[in-house]
Amino acid sequence: MYDLIVVGAGPAGITAAIYAARKRMNLLVITKDLGGQAALSGDVENYTGYQYISGFELTEKFLEHMKKFDIELREAEEAKKIEVAKDRLRVRTDIGDYEAKTTILASGARPRTLNVPGEKEYKNRGVTYCATCDGPLFSGMDVAVVGGGNSALDATLQLMRIANRIYLVTKNNAYRGDRVMLEKVESSEKVEILYLTETLEIIGDKTVNSIRFRKNGEEKTIKVQGVFIEVGYVPNSEPVKDIANLNERGEVIVDGQNRTNIPGLFAAGDVTNVPEKQIIIAAGEGAKASLSAFKYLSHLSG
Amino acid sequence: MYDLIVVGAGPAGITAAIYAARKRMNLLVITKDLGGQAALSGDVENYTGYQYISGFELTEKFLEHMKKFDIELREAEEAKKIEVAKDRLRVRTDIGDYEAKTTILASGARPRTLNVPGEKEYKNRGVTYCATCDGPLFSGMDVAVVGGGNSALDATLQLMRIANRIYLVTKNNAYRGDRVMLEKVESSEKVEILYLTETLEIIGDKTVNSIRFRKNGEEKTIKVQGVFIEVGYVPNSEPVKDIANLNERGEVIVDGQNRTNIPGLFAAGDVTNVPEKQIIIAAGEGAKASLSAFKYLSHLSG
Repeated sequence: MYDLIVVGAGPAGITAAIYAARKRMNLLVITKDLGGQAALSGDVENYTGYQYISGFELTEKFLEHMKKFDIELREAEEAKKIEVAKDRLRVRTDIGDYEAKTTILASGARPRTLNVPGEKEYKNRGVTYCATCDGPLFSGMDVAVVGGGNSALDATLQLMRIANRIYLVTKNNAYRGDRVMLEKVESSEKVEILYLTETLEIIGDKTVNSIRFRKNGEEKTIKVQGVFIEVGYVPNSEPVKDIANLNERGEVIVDGQNRTNIPGLFAAGDVTNVPEKQIIIAAGEGAKASLSAFKYLSHLSG
Repeated sequence: MYDLIVVGAGPAGITAAIYAARKRMNLLVITKDLGGQAALSGDVENYTGYQYISGFELTEKFLEHMKKFDIELREAEEAKKIEVAKDRLRVRTDIGDYEAKTTILASGARPRTLNVPGEKEYKNRGVTYCATCDGPLFSGMDVAVVGGGNSALDATLQLMRIANRIYLVTKNNAYRGDRVMLEKVESSEKVEILYLTETLEIIGDKTVNSIRFRKNGEEKTIKVQGVFIEVGYVPNSEPVKDIANLNERGEVIVDGQNRTNIPGLFAAGDVTNVPEKQIIIAAGEGAKASLSAFKYLSHLSG
């Protein structure tokens, strides 16, 4: 039995693991992928201490930092369910079962779908949810970015270096996100922002060739070869949905010490109700969760 | 009138300022010192992304990051009182008054005193509260470190490179802190750990020459030229003590969004009831506070 299982290895899970390793806790990290969504960010300019770094590079630094410690890591393995089993927690994955006195769920979130006709059909044939991963495939092409928040601005910034023309489409009447990002987007001649515009359909033959909108009651079709969907995230809280208290967005509810309603079960980062999804915040939350788990263990043995 | 005044420029205040600057908030930072306690840390090995960095170097990186933005900074100025003035907050310093719609208190904490005879008398004549600042003055000498937590271990680690012999003195029967640090300390031939030992008096003539303890009912005096006191911290919450809810330790009580009980007044980092005093946690809390202040402002104008 482990002292602690950390589920997930994004900024929250990695930081939790580093703190636990430094406390010499008997530790297992289980993760579907390394780095989480941070690895897919474009330029990161707000991780204190790094003025400019790509999400990929920052993630490399996080992983190197974690791997400095002798941590048991089960990679490419997905936690499906976390159960209470008497005095311990059992983490069931697609491969096996693992038991621990404490568990930190740091499984992050995944992109939300737009749910319009053509979206599923053309997924990976022009429709994508990751500008960092797929942006380079659209070099010199015309693309649409759908979404009203910072992720849409981030995707647009990345595509400004690659694509020919970018239609940034939002249902809202303004961007409330990061002003620095918005100003860069607004000052680009490549970008046309379509406010108060609803995306109706993604159209194509073998791959995407256009996108249909409604604006001011009028429908319009624009030729694009790519559609980047950036409309928010769904928390990966499924493993604990039967035992933990979730809010209306499906996020795991934690207190100021990252405790859930289940003794020994902690959560950190984007899977929780922490109000902002930011790398530096997730890292801080991971540290807090790890120190709370350590305190809980001390109490058990004390 | 400013949108936001940030009081303090440690990891929490700097991160809050970076986030606010990126939102193009009309911002003032008021701080007594730059870097806060982080600047005085020895080796930092748990700021995710930096495997090894000194507190001084990490602080330099934080400050460079902040100064990348055109932020109005009032340095060497101390916030004495924060008052509610109708629809705004007024920050009174030793130099002037400043008004803002929102304020983030990120004023950190300061070392606690031991309150034994000789402590005040020999302050800066052998008695010190900062191994990073004063350690080098004790090169080749015998010193005592008094304290039972991570700060005492950190001070000892720093002194192991400098002093001749180190007596690490704690009232407790064990160190519950960072195991990695404790192992390094235990394996040093320079260090003698005195558990269950109460410090009674610091003795000297012009400067410190010995320290008197009680252990197992017996008193003992040991010759030392320096005494490093590391017995915890007192939050710098005085500026808001008349308006904000504090806990029994004098820490400002904040919720998961870093709000205090006063509308528009937020707090972050070591001055708050956040359970652990860590650089990565303070940085994350600063980001949260800044985004909460931004939301509050949007609501005011919306």
